[in-house]
Amino acid sequence: MQDGYHGDQTLAALLRRAGIERTPAEVRALVHGVLAAPTGHDPDAWLTLLGPDLPEDLGVQLRALKADLARRLPSGEPDYAARLAALRGELKRRDLDGFIVPRGDEHQGEYVPPRAQRLAWLTGFTGSAGMAVVAREAAAVFVDGRYTLQVRAEVPADLYEYRHLIDDPLPDWAAASLPRGARLGYDPWLHTVGWVEKMRHALERAGIALVACPDNVVDAVWAEQPPSPLAPVVPHPPAFAGMPSAEKRAELAQRLQRDGIGAAVLTQPDSIAWLLNIRGADVPCTPLPLSFAILADDGSVELFIDRRKLVPGLEEHLGNQVAVRPVEALGPALDDLGRIGKKVLADPATTAAWVFDRLHLAGARIDREPDPCALPKACKNPVELAGTRAAHRRDGVAMVRFLKWLSENAPAGGVTEIVAAERLHGFRAAGEHFRGPSFETISGAGPNGAIVHYRVAPETDRRLEPGSLYLLDSGAQYLDGTTDVTRTIGIGEPTPEMRERFTLVLKGHIAVATARFPRGTSGSQLDTLARAPLWKAGLDYDHGTGHGVGSFLSVHEGPQRISKVPNAVALQPGMILSNEPGYYKAGAYGIRIENLIVVQPCTEQPEPERPMLSFETLTLVPIDLTLVEPAQLTNAELAWLNAYHQRVRTELTPLLDAESAAWLAAATAPVMP
Amino acid sequence: MQDGYHGDQTLAALLRRAGIERTPAEVRALVHGVLAAPTGHDPDAWLTLLGPDLPEDLGVQLRALKADLARRLPSGEPDYAARLAALRGELKRRDLDGFIVPRGDEHQGEYVPPRAQRLAWLTGFTGSAGMAVVAREAAAVFVDGRYTLQVRAEVPADLYEYRHLIDDPLPDWAAASLPRGARLGYDPWLHTVGWVEKMRHALERAGIALVACPDNVVDAVWAEQPPSPLAPVVPHPPAFAGMPSAEKRAELAQRLQRDGIGAAVLTQPDSIAWLLNIRGADVPCTPLPLSFAILADDGSVELFIDRRKLVPGLEEHLGNQVAVRPVEALGPALDDLGRIGKKVLADPATTAAWVFDRLHLAGARIDREPDPCALPKACKNPVELAGTRAAHRRDGVAMVRFLKWLSENAPAGGVTEIVAAERLHGFRAAGEHFRGPSFETISGAGPNGAIVHYRVAPETDRRLEPGSLYLLDSGAQYLDGTTDVTRTIGIGEPTPEMRERFTLVLKGHIAVATARFPRGTSGSQLDTLARAPLWKAGLDYDHGTGHGVGSFLSVHEGPQRISKVPNAVALQPGMILSNEPGYYKAGAYGIRIENLIVVQPCTEQPEPERPMLSFETLTLVPIDLTLVEPAQLTNAELAWLNAYHQRVRTELTPLLDAESAAWLAAATAPVMP
Repeated sequence: MQDGYHGDQTLAALLRRAGIERTPAEVRALVHGVLAAPTGHDPDAWLTLLGPDLPEDLGVQLRALKADLARRLPSGEPDYAARLAALRGELKRRDLDGFIVPRGDEHQGEYVPPRAQRLAWLTGFTGSAGMAVVAREAAAVFVDGRYTLQVRAEVPADLYEYRHLIDDPLPDWAAASLPRGARLGYDPWLHTVGWVEKMRHALERAGIALVACPDNVVDAVWAEQPPSPLAPVVPHPPAFAGMPSAEKRAELAQRLQRDGIGAAVLTQPDSIAWLLNIRGADVPCTPLPLSFAILADDGSVELFIDRRKLVPGLEEHLGNQVAVRPVEALGPALDDLGRIGKKVLADPATTAAWVFDRLHLAGARIDREPDPCALPKACKNPVELAGTRAAHRRDGVAMVRFLKWLSENAPAGGVTEIVAAERLHGFRAAGEHFRGPSFETISGAGPNGAIVHYRVAPETDRRLEPGSLYLLDSGAQYLDGTTDVTRTIGIGEPTPEMRERFTLVLKGHIAVATARFPRGTSGSQLDTLARAPLWKAGLDYDHGTGHGVGSFLSVHEGPQRISKVPNAVALQPGMILSNEPGYYKAGAYGIRIENLIVVQPCTEQPEPERPMLSFETLTLVPIDLTLVEPAQLTNAELAWLNAYHQRVRTELTPLLDAESAAWLAAATAPVMP
Repeated sequence: MQDGYHGDQTLAALLRRAGIERTPAEVRALVHGVLAAPTGHDPDAWLTLLGPDLPEDLGVQLRALKADLARRLPSGEPDYAARLAALRGELKRRDLDGFIVPRGDEHQGEYVPPRAQRLAWLTGFTGSAGMAVVAREAAAVFVDGRYTLQVRAEVPADLYEYRHLIDDPLPDWAAASLPRGARLGYDPWLHTVGWVEKMRHALERAGIALVACPDNVVDAVWAEQPPSPLAPVVPHPPAFAGMPSAEKRAELAQRLQRDGIGAAVLTQPDSIAWLLNIRGADVPCTPLPLSFAILADDGSVELFIDRRKLVPGLEEHLGNQVAVRPVEALGPALDDLGRIGKKVLADPATTAAWVFDRLHLAGARIDREPDPCALPKACKNPVELAGTRAAHRRDGVAMVRFLKWLSENAPAGGVTEIVAAERLHGFRAAGEHFRGPSFETISGAGPNGAIVHYRVAPETDRRLEPGSLYLLDSGAQYLDGTTDVTRTIGIGEPTPEMRERFTLVLKGHIAVATARFPRGTSGSQLDTLARAPLWKAGLDYDHGTGHGVGSFLSVHEGPQRISKVPNAVALQPGMILSNEPGYYKAGAYGIRIENLIVVQPCTEQPEPERPMLSFETLTLVPIDLTLVEPAQLTNAELAWLNAYHQRVRTELTPLLDAESAAWLAAATAPVMP
């Protein structure tokens, strides 16, 4: 059979023969959606969306069609001047004096599908946070300190001014660049209600009206805008989820009833995934099914999602308390909530202003409260905890094999940041239940390690050189758990300063790992434990100490975190967090030691006067002892280090080949004071 | 000359002869105001309000008149049932279904003058926090956990229900006790705008309207309500204030101008005292001049105060940029602010709702921001810091003499809590610049020490018994500084548990005292340092670790504090705080170790990588070494303890008699590991 796509007629015949009632046009639309999602772990997974067990010839043609359409995706040098001009023409037609183009999508998530990458399409800026404002004459891109160099490299200086997102905020620029009485448009789907209220207030002082646009002005001029992603939505089986969706829904429904709330609007895909025990693949690194939902106080759910991305059998999995509706039905459903008489919960920190506006117009009594799924999702159940422990053993095996390989190859000088990251990926991919990285690996050699948000690229790829430090921050998605680990590895002989500062970071890491604290304590309260050893030496680091981590979900989740930013959420048993103090010497090296930890009750005897909590460390990866200065550690700290390494050895050795086990034994040999 | 008051005619003649243009009726009104203020350090200070250097016979008659009027102050058993009935009658006349009676006054301060003690007058409750609600049929008193016993002892159970202020809040009680459509009155002078908004929202759900009353309903039925206090307002001289008022006002004015703010409304008497370099005596323990002020963006001030309480010459001290106005002129002045076009700053956390309502009605553009005096007042200038160091030396001398006395007398068994507190007061009163206690002394023997908010009373007075701990928390107002110190003293032989837990508290105290931290760090971030040693042992304490302290002002001031409650205020050089971790074993003993500390920049070499701050300990009082278990301390902790005691010895010995110096030398002998 000839290679390539044989045409729509052939496809129609094959579909008919397989009993699939779809036209070639429908299939093309589906494939366009598939192409707008990441390729994912199994590039053929999307085929299940057309049915189970497709005939081989149909499969061949579908893959060929996908390859054909992929080749036709827009390419070539983008003309940013033309795009900007087109947008300005549209502003004029709509009688707007400006329009705000944020980086986010309707879900305010970390990853944005191609369809919502309006900021990148318009300006070229690809960083993970930023915003543009286009006025009739002027235009500006706002980015934070991480991206001041990148924005200059990506965004044409003759089209956009560069502004600092925090120090030089949007309202100031707007006041200077727009006349009093100006109408500044925004897409209420792309901003939280909190942001809109703050911005409206700030702009009012300058006599500028913030105008909600019924549709996105960029979309109107973006001819080749991709469709929404269509990646398969699959069940997350009980063996990993640990608790039936019906039970989760019943518990939440009880809480809603208790608080006199009739329904909760859910706009966070990870909340929906958790609540319904489903997973998707619409964005990279996180198994999210992009969707919306309304949870009623009887435990029933309306799920607003493109039905085409549900794998066969998913509706049975969801059960008869979950109704699947098209995304377009969300608005009318919100209108209905205006008539239920009871309060409607929506989270002002994450929910699009559009939802609040619609509820408000419908006369709903809105209760602004945190997403009700966030807290129960954060407290992992015993099955999820068993899963994450298993996933961490697998991840530890991959890391040990990698570290052994690195120790054998890096000193010879042949390893670069990209080579190392790819090698690690290979070791991980061999593990059971592996579903891809949980975020883009940070592989930073020497001075690149000091760039906290470094992502390797061919043009910055560095060789790991003797006498330097190598910082590797990576993680994986396994069906049974999400991992995230950072190790800093000395290549050759580290300097005394490197060892001293690594040991200070390690002291902070150990202080968090060994913390005991009463119930009710928040992560903010623990942050200083990680920093105090560095502070004593006049040092610090400019990022949080720990973020929440999901269970085969987002590697960054709330509501808990360990951060100096005030946060009143009490740590509770089952919450997974990272423990990742660091130190960064600009232009020289970066140090970070990151393990995942889980909150657990203290059970030792005699019983403490108050109920206390502590952490169990989940990550099982050796810490580079060539960077540790034992004289700086207290006996208790040394005891922790040795006990941790003993545990890593005990848990991983049975899963390792003999050579790796021998390497691990040497790498985890007890340190004497 | 015969004793006693000789009558108004005699007084009139004496006044005339002294050239004082006041009628006896005016003098009587003044004396009523004087009687409504605390007696103060100098009971005759009020005489200066009639003029300098009064003739002796006039002074005699004025003192006699005051004694005469004091004898006629209302006394006898209060009839709470009659008071409640009268209030209900008034509610009916005003068509109200209920009225809220809080504990606070117009300034939301810690101390409330007799005129504003409506809650105590109505219900009998004298605690420092609480609230009553009186409905047509029901009535309730709301207090927090500290006062659950006291409220039962003070408030008649047949008249009032007892409710928990936090767990069982007012809106819930109101919803259950008032009909839908009810009108619940409140005095907008006695609540912050934030409280009113929250309460209005909560009551709306129950269909209850919160109604601002033009005057206080309790006042309408309180026939013998005292007048506002009239204690002399005096200059705070440059030798103590360190910075001219004009300079403070110019700096603040510049800030207001920068932020486009036309004026700031000041309702905090300590802010006004600081800004104008004046002090008063209207409430106990804190030299506050109760008053209001408006600071304009040109640095001029309108001071709203009863002119009768200004000592002669005070207006010259204030200067021509400060206009003195009667308190009644505040409302019209706020109306004027509605017409200035610029924004008006008012602090929603401390300002009465009345002010916001009036500004709002006047059409003012209100900027809700913290009191602009709070931060500069908190950062003491070099003269204030020199003053506080001198005050702490004097306070240390008094404490050492007291501790020596205690060590000689307590083991014999003759010392009670009251005897000890009075003895300490005597030692302090002998010091230069002493102006009274900075708060009511906490003198707690044995189990009384475990009651965090214990105040000694004859009926609870305990003897200091061998084998027990004695907790003494006290402080003084000196013209050059405010002190606050807690020491826990072992009486006889302490138990091993007492020593172990005292040492844990000491470890926490030392962790704060020796903390180094980057600029930008808040007190919240340091709180855990004080608790971590207790946490390791399964213990904790239920109060903050540190509060701000004024300079001859409030012993509790903001905006900084060391507390687990999130607080984003960065610690800045010159801020004074307490460092007071503790441990309380209910029914057995209490431990607290409190020193005042001041934030200072780290100046050591080599320069740290980041600008760091640390604390200087101000308090100079030995820590009871019989309670310290050296084996629990690290070498660094022991070094701190010994260095601290060495400093106490070096600074105080020259100021002590030989016997006290010898006692101090023994009490501060170095501890060996």
